Amino acid sequence: MALSADEVHSLKQAPLVEGVLPVMHNRWSPRSFADRTVCRDDLHRVFEAARWAASSNNEQPWRFLLGVRDVAPFDEIYTKLLAALLGFNQEWASAAPVLVLGVVDAKFAHNGKDNPHALYDLGGAMAHFALQATALGLTTRQLAGFNPELVRDSLHIPPNYVLGVITALGYQGEPSALENEKLQAREVAPRERKPLTELVFSSWGEPADLRD
Amino acid sequence: MALSADEVHSLKQAPLVEGVLPVMHNRWSPRSFADRTVCRDDLHRVFEAARWAASSNNEQPWRFLLGVRDVAPFDEIYTKLLAALLGFNQEWASAAPVLVLGVVDAKFAHNGKDNPHALYDLGGAMAHFALQATALGLTTRQLAGFNPELVRDSLHIPPNYVLGVITALGYQGEPSALENEKLQAREVAPRERKPLTELVFSSWGEPADLRD
Repeated sequence: MALSADEVHSLKQAPLVEGVLPVMHNRWSPRSFADRTVCRDDLHRVFEAARWAASSNNEQPWRFLLGVRDVAPFDEIYTKLLAALLGFNQEWASAAPVLVLGVVDAKFAHNGKDNPHALYDLGGAMAHFALQATALGLTTRQLAGFNPELVRDSLHIPPNYVLGVITALGYQGEPSALENEKLQAREVAPRERKPLTELVFSSWGEPADLRD
Repeated sequence: MALSADEVHSLKQAPLVEGVLPVMHNRWSPRSFADRTVCRDDLHRVFEAARWAASSNNEQPWRFLLGVRDVAPFDEIYTKLLAALLGFNQEWASAAPVLVLGVVDAKFAHNGKDNPHALYDLGGAMAHFALQATALGLTTRQLAGFNPELVRDSLHIPPNYVLGVITALGYQGEPSALENEKLQAREVAPRERKPLTELVFSSWGEPADLRD
């Protein structure tokens, strides 16, 4: 358990595949965040990356509430988001300097009909956000374990917006900074993914052969 | 309307913001695809990028059905996906050499409960896919305009999987290759996004000031 933040970051890299963008391999989701603020230019950059994501009908259904600890006027959102986190999320997330809530308009603006793709599109925008953060030396962890009613009420989110996820943003911290031993163990565990043979099919359930 | 593919690609770049990853600015969604196949190594790379996306509980709810025109055994999926496209989607998408359907498991594997984040997570994985494609000189357009029952039946997708989107993948083509004049006009129109002042808030509806 004596691994440093740098050692953990190395351990968490996905195996290199030649030609794949470095950020795809570098991005992972820590729970330990360093006591270091995110500069405003970098906040601008991560939202700029999110803004150019694809969306159904170019609806751009996403809206973001930006919470920054101890920085007015963003500290109020930060405090309210943190208060709504459930279980051990509150414990680790309180070390992150930035918490962002993503919500989506549930209707298409051009015709008022339900937009069934809004959360899918938010997922794309937040992937842009997370990859851009990685490119800047920052790191993110997205979390869905929060009290939605409390978030909606305390942040005055209109009923036509659907709550998505909260993303913690900051610099990776030392794993030893996590007090909870279970979270510490997860912080230093290797990342795992299903192999492509379980994910990409040439007919349902039949692995696609992606080798020449 | 006499713009070349290269001129259109230049026109579609998002305004540069220093420090933002080039792929964020370069990615856009064409409807014209060149008559050029995608090599299998690049197919491997785009799925590899998708595979390392974040997901709730590391569930990796995504599964992909890979359709490649005229390449067995993938041509069967290609033909079936193309047949299910609605309206003018069929017209332009038939030029793309690759069509990929993304679906998600609607339940968490570890407890059998509903996974409300599965489509959000698929959105993230497909954003990885699209950005990785951009980095390889490829391009993508995601589309939701298809007959879901036809797709489910013809591809034998089990009822516990929710259909996401179909992504067309290939090399950008000449705008003049689009026969439909309306689509041609869209192909050469500048991209538009809402400004960050409409997207990032310091309290609901209040633009966050992201400048120092």
